[in-house]
Amino acid sequence: MSEFIIRPNPEDPRLTEVVRGVDQTGAAVDTAVTVERPLTLYLNGQEIVTMMTIGDHPEYLALGYLLNQNMLRADDNVTAIQFDEELDVVVVRTDRRTDFEEKLKKKTLTSGCAQGTAFGDLMERFEQVALAEDAVLRTSWLYALLHKVNTAPSLYLAAGAIHGCLLAQGDRPLVYMEDVGRHNAVDKIAGWMFQNRVPPDDKIFYTTGRLTSEMVIKTVQMGIPILVSRSGFTAWGVQLARQAGLTLVGRARGKRFVALSGEHRIVFDADPTYSEEEAARHRRKGARDED
Amino acid sequence: MSEFIIRPNPEDPRLTEVVRGVDQTGAAVDTAVTVERPLTLYLNGQEIVTMMTIGDHPEYLALGYLLNQNMLRADDNVTAIQFDEELDVVVVRTDRRTDFEEKLKKKTLTSGCAQGTAFGDLMERFEQVALAEDAVLRTSWLYALLHKVNTAPSLYLAAGAIHGCLLAQGDRPLVYMEDVGRHNAVDKIAGWMFQNRVPPDDKIFYTTGRLTSEMVIKTVQMGIPILVSRSGFTAWGVQLARQAGLTLVGRARGKRFVALSGEHRIVFDADPTYSEEEAARHRRKGARDED
Repeated sequence: MSEFIIRPNPEDPRLTEVVRGVDQTGAAVDTAVTVERPLTLYLNGQEIVTMMTIGDHPEYLALGYLLNQNMLRADDNVTAIQFDEELDVVVVRTDRRTDFEEKLKKKTLTSGCAQGTAFGDLMERFEQVALAEDAVLRTSWLYALLHKVNTAPSLYLAAGAIHGCLLAQGDRPLVYMEDVGRHNAVDKIAGWMFQNRVPPDDKIFYTTGRLTSEMVIKTVQMGIPILVSRSGFTAWGVQLARQAGLTLVGRARGKRFVALSGEHRIVFDADPTYSEEEAARHRRKGARDED
Repeated sequence: MSEFIIRPNPEDPRLTEVVRGVDQTGAAVDTAVTVERPLTLYLNGQEIVTMMTIGDHPEYLALGYLLNQNMLRADDNVTAIQFDEELDVVVVRTDRRTDFEEKLKKKTLTSGCAQGTAFGDLMERFEQVALAEDAVLRTSWLYALLHKVNTAPSLYLAAGAIHGCLLAQGDRPLVYMEDVGRHNAVDKIAGWMFQNRVPPDDKIFYTTGRLTSEMVIKTVQMGIPILVSRSGFTAWGVQLARQAGLTLVGRARGKRFVALSGEHRIVFDADPTYSEEEAARHRRKGARDED
């Protein structure tokens, strides 16, 4: 597959807007901020949720959300996905009849970002997934991917306050999705994989968001054996990763990282030390926006 | 009020745990990660939500959550708050009868982190709040506060992957709360203010999280006229801040910042340029973990 089949388009005028303010000296400044809009999702006529999104991939977001919430199954026949831009509504229809009245009632707000789902549901498929044991993460790939994602044009670089997720194969970035919500970015990738029947076994998943329980659960349910983040871990995220045999790499910045699960898949084939030039460049980089 | 009435305690063994992994050279490392635990909240016998939290202030979290979700009113008489550590349950009781069956059904996942609330509810009080026009934010205070919060012992410095919020008065940090969820940290402060009858008009609120619509709405509903973050903005967050006349300062790092609303409260009394020493120190600081 070629690199960056999908990537963010910071030039898309719907995604950012310029606002005027003042800086620390009191001088007027014009700055770009990310635009979010509501998207209401219906499944077979039932209203499921309204979420805020930058709105660039409503269909993938809808599919991925439903998959990751276990409302849509991998073997479902999706008969329609209709996005209505005026109403900010996306409707998904399947052959299978669905009714999530009970599921929609029970809400659990999980750490960091809440997707409002009961743990029981999130864990449904988790324990049944067998991740590919022979998948590999070469540190040379990791460094290449981090470099490519950090230098790709993005809404983050243009306007900030946004999360990104990358689906990769070896050292090749395939799909790079951004959104105001890190879970949206994850779900968009899940939706894309479902729509395009992309197998997960040999893929690497990178996120800017923290490695919490939900992030680990989603990655495992998507069948991806390797998860990398520039951010840190929660204890439960680590525990779940170990339970599922997921390779979990966090605090990945520059050439440094910590792996707290699935270390057996890592091949240390790259030089983990900086050249003088790399060190100087790394120091100049600014700190990334947070959630 | 004295400084740091409440601050994080990274020495509390319940809040972090040490796990073993490998670093980028393949060498074994022991690292601390943040521990999250579930907390189920009941209001007058009705189950409201289960949230993940580091668990250091369950009563404040419960009160603040209910207040910020408009399930508890500022004038309510709270007759009991009971935390059961074994069951991970906190029960809040009020004189006033409550029933949120309908409210609990309708969920909107807002940008970034979802608190699963309908926008109608979040906006209920928003339009009624009049923020203190004569509140002031001196840039000297801002710089002092950033320095104090960045150097205070914290779970962030100890284990990462956590968000923090600070309630301040002038250049004095009053309450510094952390949690895996940035909304939990905000809610804990709201709960503390309610419990201790702390007036909001002369306070400054600082968060590590992004300045999204919900962050702005919560701050306005708490009656605090000044909101600062090291992170960026979303367009709707800016729009809501301007609508409410909130002073909104983002991308506050080192001495730099951008104010996109309520600039009239800002007094530029500090030198916004770096001394040589400050510049060197700032370059050495690492990038902060994200959500």
